[in-house]
Amino acid sequence: MYFSIMVSIVLLGAGNVATHLYTAFQQTPKVVVKQWYARSLSAVKSHASEVAITNNLDEITLADVYVLAVSDTAVASLSSALPFSERLVVHTSGSVGIHDLDKKNNRGVFYPLQSISKHATVDFKTIPICIEVLRKEDLLPLTTLAEAINSPWRKVNSEQRAALHLAAVFANNFTNQLYRIAHEITEQKSASFDLLKPLIKETARKLDELTPYLAQTGPAVRNDTKTIKKHLQLLTNTQHKAIYKLLTQSIQETHGTKKL
Amino acid sequence: MYFSIMVSIVLLGAGNVATHLYTAFQQTPKVVVKQWYARSLSAVKSHASEVAITNNLDEITLADVYVLAVSDTAVASLSSALPFSERLVVHTSGSVGIHDLDKKNNRGVFYPLQSISKHATVDFKTIPICIEVLRKEDLLPLTTLAEAINSPWRKVNSEQRAALHLAAVFANNFTNQLYRIAHEITEQKSASFDLLKPLIKETARKLDELTPYLAQTGPAVRNDTKTIKKHLQLLTNTQHKAIYKLLTQSIQETHGTKKL
Repeated sequence: MYFSIMVSIVLLGAGNVATHLYTAFQQTPKVVVKQWYARSLSAVKSHASEVAITNNLDEITLADVYVLAVSDTAVASLSSALPFSERLVVHTSGSVGIHDLDKKNNRGVFYPLQSISKHATVDFKTIPICIEVLRKEDLLPLTTLAEAINSPWRKVNSEQRAALHLAAVFANNFTNQLYRIAHEITEQKSASFDLLKPLIKETARKLDELTPYLAQTGPAVRNDTKTIKKHLQLLTNTQHKAIYKLLTQSIQETHGTKKL
Repeated sequence: MYFSIMVSIVLLGAGNVATHLYTAFQQTPKVVVKQWYARSLSAVKSHASEVAITNNLDEITLADVYVLAVSDTAVASLSSALPFSERLVVHTSGSVGIHDLDKKNNRGVFYPLQSISKHATVDFKTIPICIEVLRKEDLLPLTTLAEAINSPWRKVNSEQRAALHLAAVFANNFTNQLYRIAHEITEQKSASFDLLKPLIKETARKLDELTPYLAQTGPAVRNDTKTIKKHLQLLTNTQHKAIYKLLTQSIQETHGTKKL
């Protein structure tokens, strides 16, 4: 015997996450997007033939889940402004607390752990959804949403979600800034940054086989002071020099090799 | 009319780079590995049925190119110990100067820009070779070697190679240390580091479409001081806190957003 569950939602917000979620939800028969709310109708009116749209909170219809895919700063006020109670309301943010949602409704988080840009195509199959709920019975509609768009999902608590969001800043934003610095270093000598791209991809791919601890190579972990000195002399930007020193120290503390 | 060039080499060294180069050279008819020298025969004797091996520099045979795939610290002394002159001798290091090779021979560099581990399979098709020569006529045998193993190659000068090697430390070793820190942060809360792997890969993949400058997202570039403060409170390791601050500052200087 097989029970197929269908979940109805109202989507609120018109940014990157909202737009990509809308597209994904529209592609599965397991989710019905009953309505799309945006503060400004112009942001969603190109979809008016497929879905009911509104910019009036008083017009919001009944649904199993209300997905607030809005900016971090808008979550609390929008959730308070909802003219109903005791329904399931979730936000999609990594850093906003579940208790920032107004307690008149049942609260949850549906956080896609990925950096989602407006124009890039988004493949939810590869995007883990971190799900947080306060009541056990709110888990099923949210896991059903995740599975409907083929996303792997994981139940997390508030502390874990905060840790994942913080770790993502290191693994994504800060990593990308290191790419930027590498770009500046190569450009300065008219060397091609493109030559580094296979190395960058391999560094990420290696995590399929090894922990970052075991994957580490290079002058810092070898305590190759001659090369480290040479590199510090080559760096003209004092901030890049400071980053080089600090990350070299960090590697050497992790691996128990000598400090600079 | 089509001229096919065949290059003969003697390979010196038995480490990761030497071993992977040997395998790649053996697979192409365009390269003849005439001899494999290792300080200790035991390192290469499993290949004795395919190639002449030796641990005696006086036995080294005539070839178009001598490839010194040895550790950085061994390049100068090994090149001086070679009992011949006016032949083409190259090393494979990113950081050793071309002039560290003994000037009795013609000198060059054949630097595969990748972090090559012993047991990982290596696909030279994706590894750019940075080629440096002092005499124009030494370029062709080296580009022929690169093309024989299907590697893209680029002629670089000493400054460019040094810049690429330094940039690679940021893009590979330091990036990997950020992965390590992300790993520590997630483990501390029993959250799964695996959840971050799709984000890590996407961060690397995005460089196919965007420069690191344009790809930047997150609290630092948005100057989202509330989230930055929250993250700094969550970090218990003082070194991780220092790295968070320094890289946030670096992003904000790059993008002209406010300092911490």
